[in-house]
Amino acid sequence: MRSIPLPIQRLIREFNKLPGIGSKTSERFVFHLLRQPTAEIEALARSLHELKDTIRLCSDCFTVSENDFCGICENPERSKQIICVVAEPKDVMAFEKTGTYSGVYHVLGGVIDHAHGTGPDQLRIKELLTRVASGGVTEIILATNPDMEGETTAAFIAKQLKDQSSIQITKIARGLPMGGNIEFADEITLGNAMSGRQNI
Amino acid sequence: MRSIPLPIQRLIREFNKLPGIGSKTSERFVFHLLRQPTAEIEALARSLHELKDTIRLCSDCFTVSENDFCGICENPERSKQIICVVAEPKDVMAFEKTGTYSGVYHVLGGVIDHAHGTGPDQLRIKELLTRVASGGVTEIILATNPDMEGETTAAFIAKQLKDQSSIQITKIARGLPMGGNIEFADEITLGNAMSGRQNI
Repeated sequence: MRSIPLPIQRLIREFNKLPGIGSKTSERFVFHLLRQPTAEIEALARSLHELKDTIRLCSDCFTVSENDFCGICENPERSKQIICVVAEPKDVMAFEKTGTYSGVYHVLGGVIDHAHGTGPDQLRIKELLTRVASGGVTEIILATNPDMEGETTAAFIAKQLKDQSSIQITKIARGLPMGGNIEFADEITLGNAMSGRQNI
Repeated sequence: MRSIPLPIQRLIREFNKLPGIGSKTSERFVFHLLRQPTAEIEALARSLHELKDTIRLCSDCFTVSENDFCGICENPERSKQIICVVAEPKDVMAFEKTGTYSGVYHVLGGVIDHAHGTGPDQLRIKELLTRVASGGVTEIILATNPDMEGETTAAFIAKQLKDQSSIQITKIARGLPMGGNIEFADEITLGNAMSGRQNI
């Protein structure tokens, strides 16, 4: 492979580090970029620098932000009474896309995962309790993934909050996904859909 | 989506332009990078700048190169008597990985594709004829893809070369791919495998 220019080999290696990207796809990216105008490659490089230089975490909710406080926490139209607790900033993004939530968030920075060495102390649970203790919060929505780590984390936080306060604690609904098929749904999903049934 | 910092939205858009990358994957890339040390993001940005600043086309064979002439054309161990004609620089890379070819290349910069407005004049066929005319070449291997455009391009070049010289013109073998299955091979592949049979 010494016949391949080093800058190309290096960029292939860099793209190869992105999640789910194998060396073939990485090569395709590089040869695609080589066919683009220089401005296109510059735009990608500039966006990367900008990400590195400008993104920090919101001091209130710990989601990604350009300033000390994120656009959601700073928006006067968002209710500070409801806090939706999520694992990662990308979960905030997913909920924001739905356009159905008008409260604020709290990003834990992960989930309890003893197998990978993440305990409750490494998450921003203390910061959540502090926000709750400062008053004004009426509801905490636990919105972690419906897997073992997510459920464990939600249960842990629910317990901590119940010990401390009398605010409402809810969990996002489990059930059949849109476009789902009862026939092929797994038992747990179907059981959740049944037990979480709603009046129409 | 105004709640998502602009630098994040911009980088998502940039990654989204890469071939085969949808917005979900693009988001996953950005949130992956946000979890990496700054040095990782810098390395990717630097590699992009390096690509843009240092890669040009070899003056002899038109593959990607850091200098006026590529590492293959400059390597005294590579035979200048054999030229393998390919469509794109990435095809050079694919052959180089096999480690079985010791001649040089000629990159056409595409294939004849009238549907997308690429005629023979937009390819580096004139440059190939000039290389051949300058003497010393004994064999031209036509190594375009086994599809209609690739076959058309190979046939066109073969005709031009036959009109001009008496050097050997070959085409890379068609047949069953490694790991292939006779039962499920299409008729053309199977027909090619039969007609191209070799002594063992």
